[in-house]
Amino acid sequence: MSALESCLPVERVYPPRLIFMSLTGKSLLAGQPGAPGGATFRAINPATGETLAPDFHEASLGEVDTALQAAARAFEDYRERPAATRAQLLEAIATEIEALGETLLQRAHAETGLPLARLTGERARTCGQLRLFAAVVRDGSWVDARIDPALPERQPLPRPDLRRMLIALGPVVVFGSSNFPFAFSVAGGDTASALAAGCPVIVKAHRAHAGTAELVGQAVVRAVAACALPAGLFSLVHGGGASVGIAMVKHPATTAVGFTGSHAAGRALCDAAAARPHPIPVFAEMSSLNPVFLLPGAVRERGAAIATGLLGSFTLGVGQFCTKPGLVLVQRGAETDAFLQALAAGVQGATCATMLTPGIRTAFEENRQKVTALEGVTVLATAQAAPVAQKTEGQPSVALTSAANFLKHPELATEAFGPFTLVVRAETPAELLACARALEGQLTATLHGNAEDLAAAGTLVALLEQKAGRLVINAFPTGVEVSHAMHHGGPSPAASDARFTSVGTAALLRFARPVCYQGFPAALLPVALQDANPLGLMRLVNGVRTTAPL
Amino acid sequence: MSALESCLPVERVYPPRLIFMSLTGKSLLAGQPGAPGGATFRAINPATGETLAPDFHEASLGEVDTALQAAARAFEDYRERPAATRAQLLEAIATEIEALGETLLQRAHAETGLPLARLTGERARTCGQLRLFAAVVRDGSWVDARIDPALPERQPLPRPDLRRMLIALGPVVVFGSSNFPFAFSVAGGDTASALAAGCPVIVKAHRAHAGTAELVGQAVVRAVAACALPAGLFSLVHGGGASVGIAMVKHPATTAVGFTGSHAAGRALCDAAAARPHPIPVFAEMSSLNPVFLLPGAVRERGAAIATGLLGSFTLGVGQFCTKPGLVLVQRGAETDAFLQALAAGVQGATCATMLTPGIRTAFEENRQKVTALEGVTVLATAQAAPVAQKTEGQPSVALTSAANFLKHPELATEAFGPFTLVVRAETPAELLACARALEGQLTATLHGNAEDLAAAGTLVALLEQKAGRLVINAFPTGVEVSHAMHHGGPSPAASDARFTSVGTAALLRFARPVCYQGFPAALLPVALQDANPLGLMRLVNGVRTTAPL
Repeated sequence: MSALESCLPVERVYPPRLIFMSLTGKSLLAGQPGAPGGATFRAINPATGETLAPDFHEASLGEVDTALQAAARAFEDYRERPAATRAQLLEAIATEIEALGETLLQRAHAETGLPLARLTGERARTCGQLRLFAAVVRDGSWVDARIDPALPERQPLPRPDLRRMLIALGPVVVFGSSNFPFAFSVAGGDTASALAAGCPVIVKAHRAHAGTAELVGQAVVRAVAACALPAGLFSLVHGGGASVGIAMVKHPATTAVGFTGSHAAGRALCDAAAARPHPIPVFAEMSSLNPVFLLPGAVRERGAAIATGLLGSFTLGVGQFCTKPGLVLVQRGAETDAFLQALAAGVQGATCATMLTPGIRTAFEENRQKVTALEGVTVLATAQAAPVAQKTEGQPSVALTSAANFLKHPELATEAFGPFTLVVRAETPAELLACARALEGQLTATLHGNAEDLAAAGTLVALLEQKAGRLVINAFPTGVEVSHAMHHGGPSPAASDARFTSVGTAALLRFARPVCYQGFPAALLPVALQDANPLGLMRLVNGVRTTAPL
Repeated sequence: MSALESCLPVERVYPPRLIFMSLTGKSLLAGQPGAPGGATFRAINPATGETLAPDFHEASLGEVDTALQAAARAFEDYRERPAATRAQLLEAIATEIEALGETLLQRAHAETGLPLARLTGERARTCGQLRLFAAVVRDGSWVDARIDPALPERQPLPRPDLRRMLIALGPVVVFGSSNFPFAFSVAGGDTASALAAGCPVIVKAHRAHAGTAELVGQAVVRAVAACALPAGLFSLVHGGGASVGIAMVKHPATTAVGFTGSHAAGRALCDAAAARPHPIPVFAEMSSLNPVFLLPGAVRERGAAIATGLLGSFTLGVGQFCTKPGLVLVQRGAETDAFLQALAAGVQGATCATMLTPGIRTAFEENRQKVTALEGVTVLATAQAAPVAQKTEGQPSVALTSAANFLKHPELATEAFGPFTLVVRAETPAELLACARALEGQLTATLHGNAEDLAAAGTLVALLEQKAGRLVINAFPTGVEVSHAMHHGGPSPAASDARFTSVGTAALLRFARPVCYQGFPAALLPVALQDANPLGLMRLVNGVRTTAPL
């Protein structure tokens, strides 16, 4: 089923379907191709080192302005559209992405080195995410409608009629991530939640998979056209260094930013946004060690299984997950020795695999060596297989240090984005707690414990609640469910704003703000706030949650 | 009834009640008086010019550190307390404030020049606000609990059990405002919402009413002690220039900031917070013109009544409300001339009254003159009564300019905090819309129109939705209801974060963040997330809102 069938009422006149036969290498500015002329670059196949056609043309600052101005105009239209239209758009995007079929998977495979099976799964997740946001928008209760009816007789002063709901913020700039070419990129979680909230989106494509970005961008452009929405609702911008990205953040029409990537890049965007005449929020999901605490009972009862699970988790996707467990905290003991032996054996037998880009591989090696070169750190095991540099391979390894040494050297908390983890061995439970207390903000924190361990873990859990956005018990942190109860974020430096998630349906709360309507006649009230509750929303009326009409 | 009776279970051993017989002039650091030694200052009675005993001692940076460290320790305790304890504390604070009786009202009257009747009303509002937050905390549903139960059989991957709720952020720094010595000060909306959310509070007292601040601070200290909570939960800090305030914002233990005041001061706090190694949110409610659009039908039908209402609104509290209408937009016409004559006559007959501080009066005069000195601006009317400088009196006035001139001179949008408003007269509806489009972010925007006006006002309303946090029809913006549906905030520069309110029950969302609990055994789950729903909360279970147990 094409996007046309899925999203349009039959009486609507279809616009001519835009067909892109192949990659153009140009930005997509409100549905129009960008101009050539600036610097060009090519994506590189990390598994072979070969460059991939076509040349991609960096956008000019004038083109950035074109995209943002078109977005601001499109916002005036899109913000007034009913929820059903937004939902149809999200579903049409999913349908168009699926319609790209093998073309998309093969290009993404060539640009990222990620296996086709993984990419197939990520595509399904991305399309499922778009459809989940469509369902949330159709349900409508996310707008948190609140009504305090007038109390004309109240003493000493009457109360006016007050009604409040969330409305869309405005144009949102999204930076595609390196490690999720579908799910955190052109039509990923940031874009889906911004469009769901009613905001236009301008994506800065990630250089490493610019072709994948263009294909998905074309799909979005087709869906926008198929839904007869203004083309300015979506633009895709190619850029080289920081200048295009910073210009997008600083543009007066930009009202919010979504970003997934390194701490340095995220912080630069936050600083640029905070320095604007009118600062805007940046939702940057940056770096995290994702500490895993292994409590003694669990190590005793199932140390070998934990070693296997941990190895699988920290080497998943060649260790290039933001939730990769990069820090493991254990207590000294005979069972811990056995666990470490099992872990070391597993690592020795692990395979090397192609990382996303040569630059990521280099940074991984540098950060890993920064950690392992510090005093008191022993490399416990390295995969016996040698990594092939031409294939951009990363080699799994694990290192060991003491809790005392970890507390002495804050640099040991450096994230090495790749298949590496550091085990910290404490002498006492108090030392383990001290390590927990020394942690900076994290996306996740994990505990493995048996019933006895967990019964005594209240203090540790309370501490980790203050450090992380998601707490995991007896599982591993990789794998982030896209659902209502997910929270993917955490205190700084894991994310720039601990109050918001970048995964799950609550993600659209990032791109909305409340407006209160006082004394409005029925005809001017947004439909979500009308007496009859025609949308059937769950609303807060006089402080009581209800779907009843007034 | 004292706070002891109202808030404590009978079996609890009461701590010795702390008695402050009079003002000490010292900071209150986790229940202990600050040391003398630094610079001192006195409050000034603006109605007489006399300085008021005692001397107030500025806190040292060491004392700021003491307060913040104590807050961080108190947080570890307070965050674990049940909702009932937080509610009891809020109610105990209200009771203790009421118990201060005339002492508090007289001191506030002397320090601010505000009439006793107004202060009595503001005290009632402040105590009502504390009790409203207590009710919200008892209700509990504000934590937005979400549960996605495990789906172990799901293909291709099982779903783990995921549960999410809001938890307290950490110590919150609050800056008392000049214009609401009770409602936006030591135990005002910021403090109430932070304590409700589970956060300790450190207040920077406003210099202009340091004695009022100490009295209310003593009341909070007594309530904290009466509820047997850690003294570090609350501190009150006196300070002079920006250094103490900036140190509070930059302290590593601070997790969020609430502020009400000028744009320059608010922006300085935002910049300091954004430059921290770990940036924190600042909720600064700053400046707003609160434009009032008078549509032709309304002016024709009830121009005189609108003139009376507008005069009352822009001179209320000597124009020292953040929601004061400082800009009035009308269309040229015979009825508009009559309206302007009625307004001018009203202003001529208006009285001068004591402003909050000599500094505020000076700034008012300067900003008013900055506006009226611009080309194309005519002073329409000034109160005939002469202001008495020794009484710090502000003199009501109104000026007139054309829409073309307003669009030409952005400086005409300068806020003059005091009893002044600028009328902008447009030649056409299109010019009125152009003025609306040129506005920066506002706390409020108001429309007066008859049925015919409003039926044609869709474009204007849509535009103002993007400019303001609250839209008012056929009323005036002064007077901010403390309720569930209130939104007091708006796009920059009215507030630093348009997504949050500083008035109303949604204000506590500023001081909380979500945490997701994955695979937690029942015994470790927060009570709000337990299967049986023992608190009876409205929760989102599998995407459906329900109070049912799992």
